[in-house]
Amino acid sequence: MALTLEKILAARERIAPYVIKTPLLRLSALDPVFGCRVFAKAECMQITGAFKLRGAFNKVLQLSPEELAAGVVAASSGNHGRGLAYAAKTLGIPATIVIPDTAPQLKVDNILALGAEVVRCGLAERFDVAARIAKEKGAVIVPPYNNEEIMAGQGTVGLEVLEQEPSIEKIVVPVSGGGLIGGIAAAVKALRPDVAVWGAEPAAAPRYSVSLKEGKPTRITVEKSFADALVANMPGDVCFPYVARNVDGVAAVTDESMLRAHKRLLFEGKLLAEFSSAIGLGGVLEGKIPVRPDENVCFVISGGSIGPEQLDRLKSVQ
Amino acid sequence: MALTLEKILAARERIAPYVIKTPLLRLSALDPVFGCRVFAKAECMQITGAFKLRGAFNKVLQLSPEELAAGVVAASSGNHGRGLAYAAKTLGIPATIVIPDTAPQLKVDNILALGAEVVRCGLAERFDVAARIAKEKGAVIVPPYNNEEIMAGQGTVGLEVLEQEPSIEKIVVPVSGGGLIGGIAAAVKALRPDVAVWGAEPAAAPRYSVSLKEGKPTRITVEKSFADALVANMPGDVCFPYVARNVDGVAAVTDESMLRAHKRLLFEGKLLAEFSSAIGLGGVLEGKIPVRPDENVCFVISGGSIGPEQLDRLKSVQ
Repeated sequence: MALTLEKILAARERIAPYVIKTPLLRLSALDPVFGCRVFAKAECMQITGAFKLRGAFNKVLQLSPEELAAGVVAASSGNHGRGLAYAAKTLGIPATIVIPDTAPQLKVDNILALGAEVVRCGLAERFDVAARIAKEKGAVIVPPYNNEEIMAGQGTVGLEVLEQEPSIEKIVVPVSGGGLIGGIAAAVKALRPDVAVWGAEPAAAPRYSVSLKEGKPTRITVEKSFADALVANMPGDVCFPYVARNVDGVAAVTDESMLRAHKRLLFEGKLLAEFSSAIGLGGVLEGKIPVRPDENVCFVISGGSIGPEQLDRLKSVQ
Repeated sequence: MALTLEKILAARERIAPYVIKTPLLRLSALDPVFGCRVFAKAECMQITGAFKLRGAFNKVLQLSPEELAAGVVAASSGNHGRGLAYAAKTLGIPATIVIPDTAPQLKVDNILALGAEVVRCGLAERFDVAARIAKEKGAVIVPPYNNEEIMAGQGTVGLEVLEQEPSIEKIVVPVSGGGLIGGIAAAVKALRPDVAVWGAEPAAAPRYSVSLKEGKPTRITVEKSFADALVANMPGDVCFPYVARNVDGVAAVTDESMLRAHKRLLFEGKLLAEFSSAIGLGGVLEGKIPVRPDENVCFVISGGSIGPEQLDRLKSVQ
């Protein structure tokens, strides 16, 4: 088992009937703000509002009829659960989603609306709870990131970026456990090693910044942050080697920079992301991700699950 | 002088170096909300945040060297002024923009940032004030809509929609004086008479609904509305015949429907429009613009000039 380009190409074919090829937007109004030629891969416009659907479908579509009948289980801060619930509903199988108490209510409601069973628990115990439910029901756990088939599904985002805009020179990706950036970087470096791939993670949860320095997946303490979709307390051990091999850098970005970037993306770029998904732009604002004025930089806007009340937060930032 | 397809094609070539071919987005998340296959022509992502730039450039690029030296003047509720100010700055000529007191401060600030001179006045007297300034300075008035070259520039939106998505069956356009819908409808009906063109205007300012019934441009009373970009109190007499000839229907839409539609466009479509630009979607919500579930309908999202405080308004609508 390895995350190869072939696996990612196969994933693209497998999930094509079920996912949207989201638009790659050229947001020139943002160029003077961020100091480069800004492109956005709008996964916030993906079905269920996030890229997570891609990996979930790629995994579920490879289950046996017996596995499908028993159903699927996931522990998720929200978007993965919604993606899996949608995949399960589409394919007519049962799904149980374990959601930490920290996730916004909107994400819970969206999962319930897809007909999945929802179980709430503390952030730290979510994987244990999912394992217990899987055992009880004989169901298959679909992990949010730490799995090569999940990474292969997320890597299809990278294939699309290269195809939609071959002039892209750098791709910046929000980072939590490492599934999205691991998949994208594997695809991009196999096809176009000249294209740089950067990650951006919360300064409040710098699991990759720390782990890359240590040379191994290292557990960190997750501080409070508005990046509520980027809460992993360590890199996935399956993801880590791919990220370490393929990624050009990972920036740890403050909430303030992320929120400032989100505000510019919304009011000048006209695109609504969830806060977590503006973290790459925040890393550029903060000077932690290098860009040049003439450089074509694609920011992966990984999701858009956000409600009206949350936007109030933007009033306090410049 | 007539607004012909040739004029619109010439406008496209003339303004091409200066404007963005904005994306035509397929927003499938909105299909169940609006009951059709939803596409959005994202003129909110146009330079200066609105389509107005197109007409302004088409007019200014045809001025003589002497006219250019004396500069340009416009009366505008905001977006036209910003478009013209940007065109003037790009071409290195002076611009004076007369802005009614009703326009949001954000629009004024954006025009000042482009180096134009700004004169504030009451809504009703704005055209008189512009005429006086033009006389004093020997400058050319660039009207916001009531001119065939302006309409030809705006009509390039229609050419792009047909080219970007030939499967579009209906185009829905926000309506004020009639420049945008007049231009789009002229282009569309010349090339693809099978494509329907609908307008949407505020129920608080139903100048086309009334005028089309009367068979002539008719002055109406403009009531208070959140559609602050759609404030004309009668159709332009140049625009009216083109709208009367080419448009399949014009719906008068309540503020409540417009705001409800705006909220869905933002939080489910992930696209930030100004309130006025969601009026077409509002017309569908209100049942005043007919659509079918399998119909490909393109909503022209004409602008995106909106600030954080204005979004508070969405909290009071479902």
